[in-house]
Amino acid sequence: MFSFDSRLLNDCEVLGKFKLCHVLLMRDANYPWCVLVPDRENMTEVFDLNEEDQKQLNIESNTLLEFLKKEFSADKMNVAALGNVVAQLHIHHIVRYENDIAWPKPVWGVHQAKDYTDDNLQALTAKLCEGFKSLGLGFQSK
Amino acid sequence: MFSFDSRLLNDCEVLGKFKLCHVLLMRDANYPWCVLVPDRENMTEVFDLNEEDQKQLNIESNTLLEFLKKEFSADKMNVAALGNVVAQLHIHHIVRYENDIAWPKPVWGVHQAKDYTDDNLQALTAKLCEGFKSLGLGFQSK
Repeated sequence: MFSFDSRLLNDCEVLGKFKLCHVLLMRDANYPWCVLVPDRENMTEVFDLNEEDQKQLNIESNTLLEFLKKEFSADKMNVAALGNVVAQLHIHHIVRYENDIAWPKPVWGVHQAKDYTDDNLQALTAKLCEGFKSLGLGFQSK
Repeated sequence: MFSFDSRLLNDCEVLGKFKLCHVLLMRDANYPWCVLVPDRENMTEVFDLNEEDQKQLNIESNTLLEFLKKEFSADKMNVAALGNVVAQLHIHHIVRYENDIAWPKPVWGVHQAKDYTDDNLQALTAKLCEGFKSLGLGFQSK
């Protein structure tokens, strides 16, 4: 049965689920940053998924990137599946601005995560969940 | 007409082309590291590609990842589309080992690129091009 690596739950809020992937929000107010986690057991690489799931992940990932870029007027989107620390397959989708604190470097390991205030986290979660419902990906809030 | 950003050509060897993407090898002997560049003009995000090209990129990317993981007995593959410095759409495919010099960090900005010797570069290029021909992606050497 699927379960999250505990380190993902430590670092992220679970927002809900598309058809294939759980959608998480990284608790780092430096960047709007979502993480997709396919609802499948024992996956570490994207090609561990079966062909149908690979296609669905690609649709969910690209749709999410396009939504985030527009919603947050991003200068650039960064998307990556690394997994060197947390092996469970998860794909980062990060909104980048030319004036964010890590630009132009990748975000990992550059700055400590910045806490959201409770109000900001609640408002952002509501905004994202509302937007996700319009994407045609079967989003269900947690 | 498609042309490479000059910084990609400075950092990489062009090995050839799959159906959609040019295949480049990063000139960094620290890690076997390939870069896919879709043969399309004015693309910066994966979702800038049309739907058919997004599907084909996904196939080429996932097939390349699986090939590299097996060919180099990788501990983990890293895949990312960042583009904060070079905006032209390009996707990194990096073989990682638990004893490589950047592990477990992402590779960008951690260590200077290490030159290949001419012999090593030639041998690696030959090995990769031979392998790419077996992937069913229409690989043509440069």
